This record gives sequence, C-alpha cells and structure tokens, in this order.
Amino acid sequence: MTTTISAVLSKEDLLKHWLGHRNLTRRVIEAFPEKELFEFSIGGMRTFAQLATELISIGGPALQAIVSDEEKTYSEEAFVPRSKEDILKKWDEETEVIKAYYAQIPEERFGETFNLFGEYNFPIVDNIFYFIDNEIHHRGQGYVYLRALGIEPPFFWERG
Amino acid sequence: MTTTISAVLSKEDLLKHWLGHRNLTRRVIEAFPEKELFEFSIGGMRTFAQLATELISIGGPALQAIVSDEEKTYSEEAFVPRSKEDILKKWDEETEVIKAYYAQIPEERFGETFNLFGEYNFPIVDNIFYFIDNEIHHRGQGYVYLRALGIEPPFFWERG
Repeated sequence: MTTTISAVLSKEDLLKHWLGHRNLTRRVIEAFPEKELFEFSIGGMRTFAQLATELISIGGPALQAIVSDEEKTYSEEAFVPRSKEDILKKWDEETEVIKAYYAQIPEERFGETFNLFGEYNFPIVDNIFYFIDNEIHHRGQGYVYLRALGIEPPFFWERG
Repeated sequence: MTTTISAVLSKEDLLKHWLGHRNLTRRVIEAFPEKELFEFSIGGMRTFAQLATELISIGGPALQAIVSDEEKTYSEEAFVPRSKEDILKKWDEETEVIKAYYAQIPEERFGETFNLFGEYNFPIVDNIFYFIDNEIHHRGQGYVYLRALGIEPPFFWERG
C-alpha cells in the first residue's frame, strides 16, 4: 500500500517554531527599560506592554478554548501587568499553558474548523499560524520602538 | 497497515499562506507615499524601499537556488528600484517566480537540509518559514513607519 503524505510540517515542529518565536519575544520584552515598556510608543500605537498583554491573552487562552471546545470571547481583562517582571513571569506561565494544551490537540483536529473566541471561524492550524504571525508582527513593531530608544534589539534569528 | 501521518500543513497550504502574506506586504508598499517610501525611517533603520528590496532579493532567488541546487551567495545588487512602481512591478514578477519554483520542489525535499546562499544550512521548510517570518517582521516595522507618518496601514488580517 502506498500512502501519499502531502505535508511538510509536523505538529511537533510547529510547536517548536512557535516556542522559538516566544523565546525571542521574551528577549524583546526584557530589552525594554521598565518605564518605556509601559509608556513609549510611536504614532499613537500601543505601548509594548500593551502589545505583550495582547499576545499573553491569545496563545494560552486560545488553546485552552480549543481543547475544551468553548467559544469564550476574547478578553485582556484577566491580566493587568504592573511591571516588566509581571509580564515576564506571566509570559513564562503562559508558555507552559501553551505546551500543556497544545499536547492535548490531536493532529487530526488541526484541519478542523473552530470558531475561536466566538469570532474567528478557521481551521485550527490557521488560527495557530495567526497567533505566531501576529506575534512576529507586533514584535517587529517593538524592534522599531527599541531602535527609536537607541537600544539594540536582539538578533532576529536567535530563537533558543 | 496503519500509517501515522504526523503532519499538520500541506505544501499547498504553506504556499497559500506565504502568498497571502505577500499580498498584504504589497498593500503596505502601496500605502507609502513615493517620497517617504525611499526616505523615511526611524532610529537609523532602513527605509521601507530598502526592506522591500531585501524581501525581493530573498524569496524568488532562494527558491531558484534550491531547485537548481546552487549555493549562490545572497545579493541585493540585481535590483535597484527608482520608484514605487519599480518595486510593485518587481514584487509581482517575483511572486510568479516563487510560484513557478515552489511547484518544482517535491514534498520529500522539504525536510532536506539545504545550504541556502552558502550560509543558512537548514531544512528547506525551515528556510521557507524564515522568509515568511522575516517578511512579517519587516512589514510590522513598515506599519510603525506608516503610523508615524499619520497613514492608516492595511488590515493585518486581509490577505486576499
């Protein structure tokens, strides 16, 4: 019997890819001075603390919702950081949440449509790519903030 | 016989994902006024014309190198844009180059290591993700430039 495997990325590799990006984003959060993390922005955009709060409010909660098949609405209210340390601590906690729930999504479900946050009705794998892309997008903005502050951002290719 | 297919993304879906991002990046290039595209930057960073030139110098040339198994070094010298129209025209040409060469990479090769530009020795699928991530990263920087210029960027989720 011949089976054609028309696929180029394993479930494990996708998680590894995401976690690599999370390592880099963590390093960008760390690179901000405390005050500028919460106060600096350009062109009326959100501060990097606010952007990080968005990212924290997506990954873990989304996977939890997918695993428990709940269409909870999106909310940033559960996490109100007071310091860079708060954000970094929560970031690490959410990394563990992501790992735990990701492991509970069987491969067969990745192609299934799920109405995330009662709003984003796409295949689960597309939703996961959206989380990663959104993180890269906002982190790229953080790079500009850091450059504008005269701070050298971490290397884009360092993910370990 | 049971075959476990431990994969979550098809070759076709990865291309679709990339082309969606290219559509959005094209819209960001278009959103810049001619002068600011070539002159505006923040914190000593490159202009968006320079960032777009980098992206143009990666995708198509990289796939061509993978298909022909050549380790040509990376170069931006082949394309020196004089106008926004130059960039958009080249962008569209490179989209066709990407589609043509992508189709010539068999799925079995995606896991194979290839020493891209004689420098980036990773599995082909990892190199392709790097192109996409790098594009999202630089485009996110373009969003900040646009906001700083008082211009509303395109919606991040519009990829068609």
